Amino acid sequence: MKIMFIGDIVGSPGRDIWKQYAARLKSKYKPGLTIVNGENAAAGKGITKKIYHELLEAGADILTMGNHTWDKKEIFDFVSEADKMVRPANFPPGVPGEGLRYIKSGKKKVAVINLQGRTFMPPIDCPFQKADELVAAAEKETSIIFVDFHAEATSEKQALAWYLNGRVSAVIGTHTHVPTADNRILDKGTAYMSDAGMTGPHNGILGMDREVIINRFLTGLPGRFEVTDGPVQLNGIVVEIDDTTGRSTSIQRIHISEDAPFFD
Amino acid sequence: MKIMFIGDIVGSPGRDIWKQYAARLKSKYKPGLTIVNGENAAAGKGITKKIYHELLEAGADILTMGNHTWDKKEIFDFVSEADKMVRPANFPPGVPGEGLRYIKSGKKKVAVINLQGRTFMPPIDCPFQKADELVAAAEKETSIIFVDFHAEATSEKQALAWYLNGRVSAVIGTHTHVPTADNRILDKGTAYMSDAGMTGPHNGILGMDREVIINRFLTGLPGRFEVTDGPVQLNGIVVEIDDTTGRSTSIQRIHISEDAPFFD
Amino acid sequence: MKIMFIGDIVGSPGRDIWKQYAARLKSKYKPGLTIVNGENAAAGKGITKKIYHELLEAGADILTMGNHTWDKKEIFDFVSEADKMVRPANFPPGVPGEGLRYIKSGKKKVAVINLQGRTFMPPIDCPFQKADELVAAAEKETSIIFVDFHAEATSEKQALAWYLNGRVSAVIGTHTHVPTADNRILDKGTAYMSDAGMTGPHNGILGMDREVIINRFLTGLPGRFEVTDGPVQLNGIVVEIDDTTGRSTSIQRIHISEDAPFFD
Amino acid sequence: MKIMFIGDIVGSPGRDIWKQYAARLKSKYKPGLTIVNGENAAAGKGITKKIYHELLEAGADILTMGNHTWDKKEIFDFVSEADKMVRPANFPPGVPGEGLRYIKSGKKKVAVINLQGRTFMPPIDCPFQKADELVAAAEKETSIIFVDFHAEATSEKQALAWYLNGRVSAVIGTHTHVPTADNRILDKGTAYMSDAGMTGPHNGILGMDREVIINRFLTGLPGRFEVTDGPVQLNGIVVEIDDTTGRSTSIQRIHISEDAPFFD
Ligand SMILES: [Fe+2]
Ligand SMILES: [Fe+2]
Ligand SMILES: [Fe+2]
Ligand SMILES: [Fe+2]
Ligand SMILES: [Fe+2]
Ligand SMILES: [Fe+2]
Ligand SMILES: [Fe+2]
Ligand SMILES: [Fe+2]
Repeated sequence: MKIMFIGDIVGSPGRDIWKQYAARLKSKYKPGLTIVNGENAAAGKGITKKIYHELLEAGADILTMGNHTWDKKEIFDFVSEADKMVRPANFPPGVPGEGLRYIKSGKKKVAVINLQGRTFMPPIDCPFQKADELVAAAEKETSIIFVDFHAEATSEKQALAWYLNGRVSAVIGTHTHVPTADNRILDKGTAYMSDAGMTGPHNGILGMDREVIINRFLTGLPGRFEVTDGPVQLNGIVVEIDDTTGRSTSIQRIHISEDAPFFD
Repeated sequence: MKIMFIGDIVGSPGRDIWKQYAARLKSKYKPGLTIVNGENAAAGKGITKKIYHELLEAGADILTMGNHTWDKKEIFDFVSEADKMVRPANFPPGVPGEGLRYIKSGKKKVAVINLQGRTFMPPIDCPFQKADELVAAAEKETSIIFVDFHAEATSEKQALAWYLNGRVSAVIGTHTHVPTADNRILDKGTAYMSDAGMTGPHNGILGMDREVIINRFLTGLPGRFEVTDGPVQLNGIVVEIDDTTGRSTSIQRIHISEDAPFFD
Repeated sequence: MKIMFIGDIVGSPGRDIWKQYAARLKSKYKPGLTIVNGENAAAGKGITKKIYHELLEAGADILTMGNHTWDKKEIFDFVSEADKMVRPANFPPGVPGEGLRYIKSGKKKVAVINLQGRTFMPPIDCPFQKADELVAAAEKETSIIFVDFHAEATSEKQALAWYLNGRVSAVIGTHTHVPTADNRILDKGTAYMSDAGMTGPHNGILGMDREVIINRFLTGLPGRFEVTDGPVQLNGIVVEIDDTTGRSTSIQRIHISEDAPFFD
Repeated sequence: MKIMFIGDIVGSPGRDIWKQYAARLKSKYKPGLTIVNGENAAAGKGITKKIYHELLEAGADILTMGNHTWDKKEIFDFVSEADKMVRPANFPPGVPGEGLRYIKSGKKKVAVINLQGRTFMPPIDCPFQKADELVAAAEKETSIIFVDFHAEATSEKQALAWYLNGRVSAVIGTHTHVPTADNRILDKGTAYMSDAGMTGPHNGILGMDREVIINRFLTGLPGRFEVTDGPVQLNGIVVEIDDTTGRSTSIQRIHISEDAPFFD
């Protein structure tokens, strides 16, 4: 089967391009499952219940999240019941929501795991220990295990991928909002890419208004970050997985922007 | 003219693949200038005088560096005279070496600038202020200005690129050792890529031995990082620049590995 | 002459205890100059024009600030004219406000400098370089130079103090909100204390509501930090300075709380 | 009973002053138990087996450690058998050594716990979760529980102390090497001090050679940190604990230096 994964949707520009291309992407790549990272879907920070449903209706089967999961207070009202959302699994016990969920693709069951890194990020439970625990549980249910590792440092991302190599179908990084060109299949069949990139404004800084961010680097003064406008981009990947073994056979980047128009 | 830039050479495996492909790459891309990042050339940490000459003789016209510049003590003996090396320019006044050097490519003069980021990195003088100062100086000498911005955070890299957009020929990131797929020409003619990636072992973590690094993430215990062996990769870019305006017209990724063999 | 310095005033509880004891402290210690850190005076975050005047009227001659300087937007309306306020001097050129101001104490002129650290804090211009520049300027005006070094790391604080030893009257740390017991006179006459502590709620965490902060450590979830209530404390120091040489002869801690009642 | 705790012993100067005053301190304060932090005892970095025994023979009943535990490779040879040493308990499962040990003081059993913070420090398991687990275990054995919380940020230290308030006898911070003046008994009987300070050179920076560290702040260049010489200081505390309830009734600072000579 194929899994299509779309990187962090940023604000309404990100949601719009997702809605615009979801059907065409599915028609082109024919994924058995479509996963979308939604941690920045609401004005760049978090997600609302309305937007959660909006992204699913546009074509996502399930959403992954990240450090911005909790930015909109509303999340606490629906995260426990949001059975099509995984938030980083290594938040401590007691935190609402789930970090591993199973979803059906035809007759196949897929385990979707979200983990958050610690290098250059706030303290959180160990993603490696948590991965061991969740992968052990998921292996009993299915051979197809997809991991969105939301992390900053390339070293931590590569380390987790090699650590899980042969045990999961894919480890795909998110969080930096920049797609990397290192997509590959590791030697034991785990698909890997350091970062899937983001889906939203193309000419912002990580999708946000440039002037405010540049000014912050120049002056050290605070500023209000807002999603910017103008041309948009969509970034993601398609992984092809052997249903029997759960190992991947190919990983391919998707990029749509004004520089790289989409062809069916 | 074209400038070829090769990302961080890691240890002897990185030096070897550079030596192996330098002539063929030059023959294929015909760059007027070849710049190589050498901050990890000596066993993954720093550079020696011998290796400095080795990288130049293999085909580099000038080297850029980064946070690892000072790892080998020997650097202090030759950095001041190393007129084919730029180290991050925003080290404070009094630090030896230069962060901006001019180099001739035929009749053309090229300004090569190295800057280091501050987000998730040790304190150093402001790269934006220093860029303003150096670009103002360089503009008087030439329209062709190449910036290697050695930084961790994608936000800081994008911010500097947009800040210098239209004032320099290219802002190319280094340091994460992972090539990004966001190479593009910004609207005022500055070529940009968040990270050029590295040149060295393909199956390590950032080029270093995997087991030690994974163990460190698992246990928090120290370990001795060493360059790993096995298959190698080379990453870089070729930027095409309009000699008159100094603005770029194209930026193209180079990647050589066992998965992506080189074709002349 | 004596200088009395009062550590970070936190919210209305901090302002209240300052107002309550200011006259009695002055009567007891007879300082020629009273300096108060006001970076948390407005509900724990920043300062307003009203509170700026309130702290001065209660007995402060001049205020120092810190990383919270800009938390209340209103600061940008009055910081340039606030001639009884110094904000960290090592914000980049172009940032409003001043980091060095002179103030008269009888016939004596005192230079008051505010600097911000970089270790474990956001990037900012080098406090050591900026200190060199400002001390060189101030020395031409007066021998009495007081430095509030707003910084996190004890190593950076001690380093600046030893670096300025013999060149300034005092280097007093702020920012951690915990008074240190290392007040001393360095061998060339500079008074030093790593942190003056804060002035505000005694039973909060750094003056803020405990439950929210503990919950954040437990869960990693965001929370709204608010100044807490209950018993209060006041922390500060009195430095005695030789007017002619500008060097200090004693440094004494002030602490008022329910455990340590004030005696005239 | 009384517990005497001595802050981080730094190098041979720290060991020497400990040996010089141990007997006199015991004679003066008559502690039932003496705990010494030994993480910097071997040349400022880690500990050897020889020094472990040296500190015990001089008068320590048990040692606590910190982030420098593993600096000397030799530690791995003896940490498992070192039944008079606790290293931070929140290193992940599988790491050798213990983070909670019981020790007899007359007929009384004391639980000694070492934990490491995460704010501004490398990732490690959650100290709050681990504290819950260890305190629950220790409570079954004894009412007297002493916690050395080795951490950087005052907020994290205060948060853990308030979190454990009423459940343990004392939470004493270490790691910043600067004694704080906030020693107090929290309202449910837990003794607290943000940092006990260190024991070693008085005129270094955290006990290390000043010139190297100042130069690093000035230039960003690496340097070899070494324990400095000259006058020494000893810092610690004495906590008085009600044997029956395990709650503390007083906490008193100890400071010996050339400015504050020891009197029996
Ligand atoms: Fe994101
Ligand atoms: Fe994120
Ligand atoms: Fe590098
Ligand atoms: Fe680097
Ligand atoms: Fe403060
Ligand atoms: Fe502060
Ligand atoms: Fe220490
Ligand atoms: Fe430490």
